[in-house]
Amino acid sequence: MIKTLENLPTGSSLALQEVIDNLPWNTQGLINAVTQQYDSGELLMVAWMNKEALLETVASKRACYWSRSRQCLWRKGETSGHTQEVKSIFLDCDGDAVLLKVDQKGAACHTGRKSCFYNQIIDDRVVVVNDKVN
Amino acid sequence: MIKTLENLPTGSSLALQEVIDNLPWNTQGLINAVTQQYDSGELLMVAWMNKEALLETVASKRACYWSRSRQCLWRKGETSGHTQEVKSIFLDCDGDAVLLKVDQKGAACHTGRKSCFYNQIIDDRVVVVNDKVN
Repeated sequence: MIKTLENLPTGSSLALQEVIDNLPWNTQGLINAVTQQYDSGELLMVAWMNKEALLETVASKRACYWSRSRQCLWRKGETSGHTQEVKSIFLDCDGDAVLLKVDQKGAACHTGRKSCFYNQIIDDRVVVVNDKVN
Repeated sequence: MIKTLENLPTGSSLALQEVIDNLPWNTQGLINAVTQQYDSGELLMVAWMNKEALLETVASKRACYWSRSRQCLWRKGETSGHTQEVKSIFLDCDGDAVLLKVDQKGAACHTGRKSCFYNQIIDDRVVVVNDKVN
């Protein structure tokens, strides 16, 4: 269904519930979630969402993912306090990825770093390039 | 192996080939790839890489993905000319996602839009918010 938006002009729209019901959820019922700091553009993390997590995120404006390891909803920051206030949400062209632009409190990464992407490939090495913030 | 970098200070490093050989490739031999315009921070697309695609991207500094639909290497822009010049590459904390910061020529999206994330969730609608650039 989301593909019907491909050739429509800016401002065209579809009902959210119908789009969500028809997203190409994978065999585990998940789509990719990519999370970016809304003002700096820094990429914070990549995770997964099921339908329930996406609907909760839309409704609560707090990022909620699906934890594949724990097999439960993962309300980001619920225990750490490192919540993500959702500023805007986008679906990609084929609907198997969602982008959250958020305001990250503290660290997005479990290592205490702001972003999970702290390992840079430089020539033939993988180099730690960011310090912990917490 | 990449997890050994978690608690090491900034500047610590591992050999790239060893890290790549030990990434947690999924059952299809893939990791997530997220691609961002290097200067503006605009999120362009989400795709997949196998080991060969990652090694080629590192060596050529042109983004090369794995096409799950076509089951072959996908040298971005090979037919369209909409190439992605790779400025920097990062692995996330657990090594199942790679971030490319690129300079995108033309459109990253097959619809002709700069970014694939042109469908914004606004209240109870999904709204097209970006025009085609090509």
